[in-house]
Amino acid sequence: MKQRTRIELDDVADLARGAAILGTGGGGDPYIGGLMLREALLEGHTVELVDADSLSDDDLAVPFGMMGAPTVIVEKIPNGAEMVSALRTMETYLGASAKAVMCAEIGGLNALVPLAVGARCGLPVLDGDGMGRAFPQLQMTTYHIFGVSAAPMVMADEYSNTVLMQSTHASEVERLGRQMVVAMGGSCSICLYPMRGRDARRSMVRGTLSVALGLGRAVRTAARTSNDPVEKLMEYLRGTTYYKHCRVLFQGKSVDLQRETKGGFSVGHLLLAGNGQWQGRRCEIEFQNEHLIAREADRVLAIVPDLIAVLDTATAEPITTEALKYGQRVTVLGVSAAPIMRSPEALAVFGPQCFGLEEPFVPLEQIRP
Amino acid sequence: MKQRTRIELDDVADLARGAAILGTGGGGDPYIGGLMLREALLEGHTVELVDADSLSDDDLAVPFGMMGAPTVIVEKIPNGAEMVSALRTMETYLGASAKAVMCAEIGGLNALVPLAVGARCGLPVLDGDGMGRAFPQLQMTTYHIFGVSAAPMVMADEYSNTVLMQSTHASEVERLGRQMVVAMGGSCSICLYPMRGRDARRSMVRGTLSVALGLGRAVRTAARTSNDPVEKLMEYLRGTTYYKHCRVLFQGKSVDLQRETKGGFSVGHLLLAGNGQWQGRRCEIEFQNEHLIAREADRVLAIVPDLIAVLDTATAEPITTEALKYGQRVTVLGVSAAPIMRSPEALAVFGPQCFGLEEPFVPLEQIRP
Repeated sequence: MKQRTRIELDDVADLARGAAILGTGGGGDPYIGGLMLREALLEGHTVELVDADSLSDDDLAVPFGMMGAPTVIVEKIPNGAEMVSALRTMETYLGASAKAVMCAEIGGLNALVPLAVGARCGLPVLDGDGMGRAFPQLQMTTYHIFGVSAAPMVMADEYSNTVLMQSTHASEVERLGRQMVVAMGGSCSICLYPMRGRDARRSMVRGTLSVALGLGRAVRTAARTSNDPVEKLMEYLRGTTYYKHCRVLFQGKSVDLQRETKGGFSVGHLLLAGNGQWQGRRCEIEFQNEHLIAREADRVLAIVPDLIAVLDTATAEPITTEALKYGQRVTVLGVSAAPIMRSPEALAVFGPQCFGLEEPFVPLEQIRP
Repeated sequence: MKQRTRIELDDVADLARGAAILGTGGGGDPYIGGLMLREALLEGHTVELVDADSLSDDDLAVPFGMMGAPTVIVEKIPNGAEMVSALRTMETYLGASAKAVMCAEIGGLNALVPLAVGARCGLPVLDGDGMGRAFPQLQMTTYHIFGVSAAPMVMADEYSNTVLMQSTHASEVERLGRQMVVAMGGSCSICLYPMRGRDARRSMVRGTLSVALGLGRAVRTAARTSNDPVEKLMEYLRGTTYYKHCRVLFQGKSVDLQRETKGGFSVGHLLLAGNGQWQGRRCEIEFQNEHLIAREADRVLAIVPDLIAVLDTATAEPITTEALKYGQRVTVLGVSAAPIMRSPEALAVFGPQCFGLEEPFVPLEQIRP
């Protein structure tokens, strides 16, 4: 299996949309992610999605992303040079040249940033990521769970400052990096978890970029051809390996929103008043960059690491946590996380307790609708 | 001039004492500096002080020091491994091996740390530093004034975390580094301004380590043989190239001390009630890690970048700002900074205005006693 998919200009919006749905509220704004990749392609660069099997065992691959509060990232857009400068710093330090770029997480911005880097640097992008969704902290990846070191990590800001962190603990990289991202104004470009081909293969959630692209296409088509784009979206997910369990958790109107940018995160909660079959009922969603839990009164509807997507009810377009507004008509979707994300080892790193939630993890498909 | 001076165990206390006097209240605790160097020598390592002329033009030399609030450093003592790990990170990034260690500043701790690193790594230490005193911020060096880049800088903490910063602006290295030192608990070990032999020669304040050693010896001898060790100390300084203007500004008792650890600095002021010929008069000293200004009422007695040393009146032992206490009987000494430190270019980087002071710089020798 060594397929290569060239990403064309026409794919950009679909990929961004699909990635934002899987980003479960976080992972950055798909419009900005789309702009960044489109700009790179319009400059004449090309980029290919390749399978991890195309790498040799010793080839260096480097995951990229944006770090910080999504509320900041939408107002402080990277210029593209940060990522290249971060890669060069990483290569200088490691004394090796990257052979491929990787995704840290799937999100409207963070799935597209690696493609923009790949385009600008003439490197392919591995199809997959380190979680099959988005998460707010650096250690919350399958890379970490499978023993790939988060460090060295390189952070780069819009003033050509680059900061390289070396630590034996992913949690220290997160702690020190979080302070630095605050010093850098709340967001920055990062590359981290540099790894060899053999490690990429064993630690990735594979194929998630292709899934995002297909998902985004399905929603676009459904918006033209269907009265129920959310149902079409779920049809597509049911045909995938990881995301086959999915269902509508709630539909309603946003009636209360608390959101603050704190410690380099965007945290808060959203309250929905039901409509349709949910008339008279209420749903609350808590988030830290990404949605963590959806509850109806004391009942859990879905909980991290399963995915909770908030969609525009009319179009099935994803709404990220920084784009939530009072009065939006939304559909809340629950989606199963990849099995690799639900193991005890995985839950110890990004299960509900890691976010201060008291409720235990229960797989979506075991929760009574 | 290619003299080499081996630093022996018996020199350590003298060097620390002399360096703390030139540290003008900052530069770290001489007891801890002495402990660190003594420990390295007791492990069987040796270290030599060499002239910058002994380096080839392309030889790499790296200055070392501790960064952070002195109030923290006295309670969070480095274990010695941080410095070595910082040097290794720097060498890896630059792709070159250091041929010598340098001082960033002269201070009770920061003049000795480079010697401890040199001892542990088998490298000589260049005789001199980047200011002939101590300063609270990273860009406040002659290295910076002569165009040597502060970056890359490596910071290392006691948990084996290392952080490398690359920036084209020394002020950005200071700004980001200051946030990081707070995240690292208020202090850390650093190396920065890596430079080649040719740049070391043109940008250093030369010979200051030898001066510190001689000054420390003079004070020790005076404590045994003289009733006025402060006068003996000044005699020694008057024989040096840089520090020949010096005089007692005030003598008295510490009657008020405000000191807080803020933003990675130790800031505050000291109020003295005069005794002897100063009976009935008061002197106030402001500090940010180092003493910045000494005033009697509205009259300036000495001002940064000239040196203001606070000494134990009975012994002429230096008292650093973190060791100031109510009730101490002290002598305040004013000492001229090296001419290179008083140029308009230099004053733009570490003159009174850089510390928020309204008073202009006036050389000590032009101030009426």
